[in-house]
Amino acid sequence: MTQTPTTTRQIALASRPHGKPETHDFRVETVDLPELGAEEILVRNTVMSVDPYMRGRMNDVKSYVAPFDVGSPLDGGAVGEVIASRSAKVAVGSQVLHGSGWREHAILPAAAASVVDVGAAPASRYLGILGMTGLTAYVGLTAVAEMREGDTVFVSGAAGAVGQAAGQIARALGAGKVIGSAGSANKVARIRELGYDEAFNYKDGPVHDGLRAAAPEGIDVYFDNVGGDHLEAAIGELRLFGRVAMCGAISQYNATEPPPGPHNLSLAIGKNLTLRGFIVGQYAHLAQEYRGKAAEWLAGGRLQGDETFRDGLENAPQAFIDMLGGANTGKMLVRL
Amino acid sequence: MTQTPTTTRQIALASRPHGKPETHDFRVETVDLPELGAEEILVRNTVMSVDPYMRGRMNDVKSYVAPFDVGSPLDGGAVGEVIASRSAKVAVGSQVLHGSGWREHAILPAAAASVVDVGAAPASRYLGILGMTGLTAYVGLTAVAEMREGDTVFVSGAAGAVGQAAGQIARALGAGKVIGSAGSANKVARIRELGYDEAFNYKDGPVHDGLRAAAPEGIDVYFDNVGGDHLEAAIGELRLFGRVAMCGAISQYNATEPPPGPHNLSLAIGKNLTLRGFIVGQYAHLAQEYRGKAAEWLAGGRLQGDETFRDGLENAPQAFIDMLGGANTGKMLVRL
Repeated sequence: MTQTPTTTRQIALASRPHGKPETHDFRVETVDLPELGAEEILVRNTVMSVDPYMRGRMNDVKSYVAPFDVGSPLDGGAVGEVIASRSAKVAVGSQVLHGSGWREHAILPAAAASVVDVGAAPASRYLGILGMTGLTAYVGLTAVAEMREGDTVFVSGAAGAVGQAAGQIARALGAGKVIGSAGSANKVARIRELGYDEAFNYKDGPVHDGLRAAAPEGIDVYFDNVGGDHLEAAIGELRLFGRVAMCGAISQYNATEPPPGPHNLSLAIGKNLTLRGFIVGQYAHLAQEYRGKAAEWLAGGRLQGDETFRDGLENAPQAFIDMLGGANTGKMLVRL
Repeated sequence: MTQTPTTTRQIALASRPHGKPETHDFRVETVDLPELGAEEILVRNTVMSVDPYMRGRMNDVKSYVAPFDVGSPLDGGAVGEVIASRSAKVAVGSQVLHGSGWREHAILPAAAASVVDVGAAPASRYLGILGMTGLTAYVGLTAVAEMREGDTVFVSGAAGAVGQAAGQIARALGAGKVIGSAGSANKVARIRELGYDEAFNYKDGPVHDGLRAAAPEGIDVYFDNVGGDHLEAAIGELRLFGRVAMCGAISQYNATEPPPGPHNLSLAIGKNLTLRGFIVGQYAHLAQEYRGKAAEWLAGGRLQGDETFRDGLENAPQAFIDMLGGANTGKMLVRL
């Protein structure tokens, strides 16, 4: 039987990034692991997620999740194997999904972990298409944007993890036409393979031109991962009673000045538009519904998601920085 | 029996205003009245409405209503007496509400007029609290902002026609607290008399400061008549799942450059906010429901609305210009 470890490596926030994060804003450190308390488990993490929303938590700004503290370890989604347990509910050897990523070993309450079946799908899927990523796309389209069959749906950041899922789910839910924007020719080609009817590279010219060419008849739903020019272009092209799911604003996460809002926002009045922001954590009640549908779509080949892997905890900060810059196609993950 | 007139005076758009409209953008002209066609009526207008939305129609911009044509007469809400009729449905002597204002006499299809009871309420009320003004406030609070009992509701332009109605209707619908902003100390005093719990003069300092002082706990609903700084301040103070009814943007109607959107719009994501624009014409199906409630509230003294009158068709352009500048308290009307 393997000796349980008494220390772990983890990534701490060394300083708050100013604009684009740099590797010196992060620090790898080794810390002692305390004794397991009652109802706690020790997990050896095997894969962790780096996500856009984490950038906001690196600023000292009150938001829907508390900011990370300078000098403290980061956290985020991870999957790993339970190697010690003081809970009858989670056995040693189980694979669990939990929120204590950015470290090789984690101690957490058993109640904060969900056992996952890595026989049915690889561990990484529970961080992506079967997890928060997929649920975000599903919730944004259904509960937030109230997508209807036949709608023309536009998704920005369409080659990202949520964007890939959103386009395919829109298609599975009966969208009339699905349009995506991405930041390279390769990404554009890839999202077309995944079922996007139209796709354009937003770096080729003004977003508005790309969108208008792809959707000359206008759009009904905009799934916004990007903010900025994309949101403004979408407001211009939305039809009467069009809807925006505001999921993210990755174009602004590294901004050092508050970016201007869309200049054409008042078009929302005459067009009866709805812009609705959301964070997936408020829609946990839809997780079970989503998992059922996702399993079916996956089995039928209607839902897939690319994964970009990096290896080693020490490379997690660079993976995060690269993800913010768009280096990934699909979900960016770090194998530990 | 009076001779029916063969000419009428009307106001035509002489030129598209650049920024703030000036009287030379309008022209009083006398035109012949044609013979009445089948199912048409001739109306002697007694009162007409000047409304903020008309400013948008003076620009050459496609919107939810077609722009006014240069050289053609303006139009808008009016009430008058039917003095000739070729329709069995509308008798001579009836008082009717219709959309052919900005002229002393109007010929229109009988089907485009609604008979009103000027014994039950003065004609002007059918343009204001019992008409489009009141319905706009009601629809904005209920169908658009989905106001709930106990909500803290903030209304900008609260001394304007829609603003006065919105505050009182919010109160009647069970709002926990109603806050208004207006542009003078007199207006602030007046809206307090009308039942606003808190009110501030937005010219006294940053809107954000005024709002925060009035609603230190935050707000749930923002009824936006103004746009600009007001919308940005409201986004800052809205609580989780807060809602904005975007009704108007009077601060921007005379703008010659597209104004920046709210810099803090991305707060909508973390706070799960909904911003929904609307025009009342899309909610005509709620008119009957509203009229029933409004009659009850009026009878019970829970709903009143100030009226600012000007006299004479030739003074309608100045009344319109002054209304855009905030000279009115409550509804701005022109007696003909």
